[in-house]
Amino acid sequence: MEKLNTNKHISGQFNAELEDIRNRVLAMGGLVERQLEQSLDALAGLDADLARTVIEGDHKVNGMEVAIDEECTRIIAKRQPAASDLRLIITISKTISDLERIGDACVRIAKAAVDKRAKSQEPLLVSIESMGRHATRTLHATLDALARMDVEKAFALHKEDAKLDREYEGIIRQLMTYMMEDPRSIPGVLDVLWAARAVERVGDRCKNICEYIIYYVKGKDVRHTSYEEMEKDIIN
Amino acid sequence: MEKLNTNKHISGQFNAELEDIRNRVLAMGGLVERQLEQSLDALAGLDADLARTVIEGDHKVNGMEVAIDEECTRIIAKRQPAASDLRLIITISKTISDLERIGDACVRIAKAAVDKRAKSQEPLLVSIESMGRHATRTLHATLDALARMDVEKAFALHKEDAKLDREYEGIIRQLMTYMMEDPRSIPGVLDVLWAARAVERVGDRCKNICEYIIYYVKGKDVRHTSYEEMEKDIIN
Repeated sequence: MEKLNTNKHISGQFNAELEDIRNRVLAMGGLVERQLEQSLDALAGLDADLARTVIEGDHKVNGMEVAIDEECTRIIAKRQPAASDLRLIITISKTISDLERIGDACVRIAKAAVDKRAKSQEPLLVSIESMGRHATRTLHATLDALARMDVEKAFALHKEDAKLDREYEGIIRQLMTYMMEDPRSIPGVLDVLWAARAVERVGDRCKNICEYIIYYVKGKDVRHTSYEEMEKDIIN
Repeated sequence: MEKLNTNKHISGQFNAELEDIRNRVLAMGGLVERQLEQSLDALAGLDADLARTVIEGDHKVNGMEVAIDEECTRIIAKRQPAASDLRLIITISKTISDLERIGDACVRIAKAAVDKRAKSQEPLLVSIESMGRHATRTLHATLDALARMDVEKAFALHKEDAKLDREYEGIIRQLMTYMMEDPRSIPGVLDVLWAARAVERVGDRCKNICEYIIYYVKGKDVRHTSYEEMEKDIIN
């Protein structure tokens, strides 16, 4: 992982603390990425044991969120960071909240793999798995942009989320047709639909993290702004 | 609104800033509460004009989130708060994120009121409206607990969310039966289903805010803990 151009600190200990907390966020990201991969593996293979591993593993993700958040508060109180150091802490604090919610999405996907009703909809699960792999690549690239605080990549990823949204809309249409053709399938298809929605939400969370990266590097809050405005902020 | 027992500050200006930011969060909460009420009014009366007012009003909620967040960062950098002052800033910063998401839920509910497909499902919209009024009361009580930093009320509200969840499950079952009986209704019912889910999420967001209130007052992060543990923290 590249070193950041953080301000030189009088305290080498402070530098070490910032470096440590960045590593912990990336480790949390790695864990969430594995949870997402495994939840999709469980779905693809209808592997109830693996699904249960994912569901039980969520408490680790939650624990990491709480611990990192606590460390953020401790650093603010003890080190009184300003400028880019403070932005780093804020970026981390917001990022872990989205990572935790991606963890919740993994649980939802895994639940579809143990659900007897959803199991009867095997062909539908395939298209969700494919969208899920797309979301996994997005998460991986987002964590990569976070590790390097790469603002151009963050912007590109933010824009790309529209593709995942279109894929999701296609799946919803497919699920709708399926239900209309065979109304008895409705309960099972709805379980699949919740899993599809969970995957789509992973993309939204990644988009949020990309916004935090832009905030850290450019010092500008780009939430709720248009791509034109965002692009201006990034070029300047 | 009651004054809090915040630490006495050497700087009266700092006190004024904390008081001001608390008022702004409560004002944002009031706005979101109105958005929720109006989105439900729009749904109940199938009032497309009112629904559009809600949808267009969301940018105000977003703007408040960004402005308050910026003020939180400014206070941390300038005032270097510690102990309960820092917890107040963190509580506020997390709360506005959930309020903004409740604002998004209002947009989703309002969209169901302008949606032609959802309109054909008028009898179903009635049960969502009733759940929505329940969620509105929960949001109102949560904002009240926030204004007073009332930890007992926050805990009680947190526990009560289970009732809203049960109401939601009942609606999902009802929607499922409806779709099975009349498969042509499926696209319209799905639009209603998204609105129902949005209402249920309002309850989850309120639960989050209750957790932040407990964190502020008790200095303990109770996310992901059981009610038994939480109760122990509150009594002590």
